Amino acid sequence: MKLYTYFRSSAAYRVRIALNLKGLEYQAVPVHLLRGGGEQLADAYRQVNPSALVPTLVDDNGVAIGQSLAILEYLEETRPDAPLLPGDAAGRAHVRALALALVADTHPLGNLRVLKYIKGELGQSEEAKLAWQRHWLREGLVTFDAMLSRAGNRGRYCHGATPTLADCCLVPHLFSARRFEVDLAPFPALVRIDAACAQLPAFQLAHPARQPDCE
Amino acid sequence: MKLYTYFRSSAAYRVRIALNLKGLEYQAVPVHLLRGGGEQLADAYRQVNPSALVPTLVDDNGVAIGQSLAILEYLEETRPDAPLLPGDAAGRAHVRALALALVADTHPLGNLRVLKYIKGELGQSEEAKLAWQRHWLREGLVTFDAMLSRAGNRGRYCHGATPTLADCCLVPHLFSARRFEVDLAPFPALVRIDAACAQLPAFQLAHPARQPDCE
Repeated sequence: MKLYTYFRSSAAYRVRIALNLKGLEYQAVPVHLLRGGGEQLADAYRQVNPSALVPTLVDDNGVAIGQSLAILEYLEETRPDAPLLPGDAAGRAHVRALALALVADTHPLGNLRVLKYIKGELGQSEEAKLAWQRHWLREGLVTFDAMLSRAGNRGRYCHGATPTLADCCLVPHLFSARRFEVDLAPFPALVRIDAACAQLPAFQLAHPARQPDCE
Repeated sequence: MKLYTYFRSSAAYRVRIALNLKGLEYQAVPVHLLRGGGEQLADAYRQVNPSALVPTLVDDNGVAIGQSLAILEYLEETRPDAPLLPGDAAGRAHVRALALALVADTHPLGNLRVLKYIKGELGQSEEAKLAWQRHWLREGLVTFDAMLSRAGNRGRYCHGATPTLADCCLVPHLFSARRFEVDLAPFPALVRIDAACAQLPAFQLAHPARQPDCE
């Protein structure tokens, strides 16, 4: 398998964690989002992934998948060992909703193309752009935390005794939140889960600082 | 089943289509996103869905699910008749990636809370807000169209001989695109699929204009 990845992309980070949790080997193909005006925008990459976003997984059978959550579901279906979804439909719905609260409702707002629009078309300052990023990162944490509380979670991970898709999404989100100096003090439960994940080699090896394209 | 819904919400519209395609009866509970400062923000609704977003599905067994795509996957797992995902893993990955290109990468940018921030915190005009909405609606169509082309789609629907999750997401997206006067001329393949879907009662009955809370 080949993973088109960028060390600091939350979406790519999620997939790296899942690949590691399932013990799958892959070849990392770095796509530099800033260099040369953005390698993801080049025709060569658009032919791999028409959305011009990272990551893309290309399986050995040639199947190419963009969209991190579609990749995680595909891995779950084709490599069911070390499951990342619980065994019951209600549990799976909860885990998917947790993942989507970050993947859908939060992450796209901080995407590079959106930040460019904020500074370009909307003529906002660097400071206003940072406030925007922090605002939505924090909103994501508030919702995620409320969803865990509502489910009565007091476990080591987001749901059940092993990491799920929800943990694959939470950890990169917290990485971004720290990078942009969002105060994590109001979210002790999330920080605790993050610390538990950080003890696992699958999460350690997926960290942006450990990637070959890290600057 | 109970569906907390708002007639014009794309996310609720997706779920209504899926419920109809599967022939499932449900009780619609309208949540007015504008009235009284937003009924979705009230404590009563937050207790149903901590994200304070519509829709929420509450199954007869009490399971409550926010996030439209998590709801669609749950319905697919628990009510497998009239499948909304293809039978092969590669096909499922493609359909999920199509859905996420709209659900994750596009729709959240036009959400009410985001538009409020654009006008409030960023001090943008109504015109600039509209341009923002149109820009991202169009971007979603460009990506979706490129993904269909890349897959060599020439079928009646987005994938295969029957509607899938991708169609459940495309049709509400096109409804919004028309509402905000995005030029659809560059997307004949998408308009054609939309027209095919519009012939099915499941899509007709899910249309915003047919909802009890439509104004």
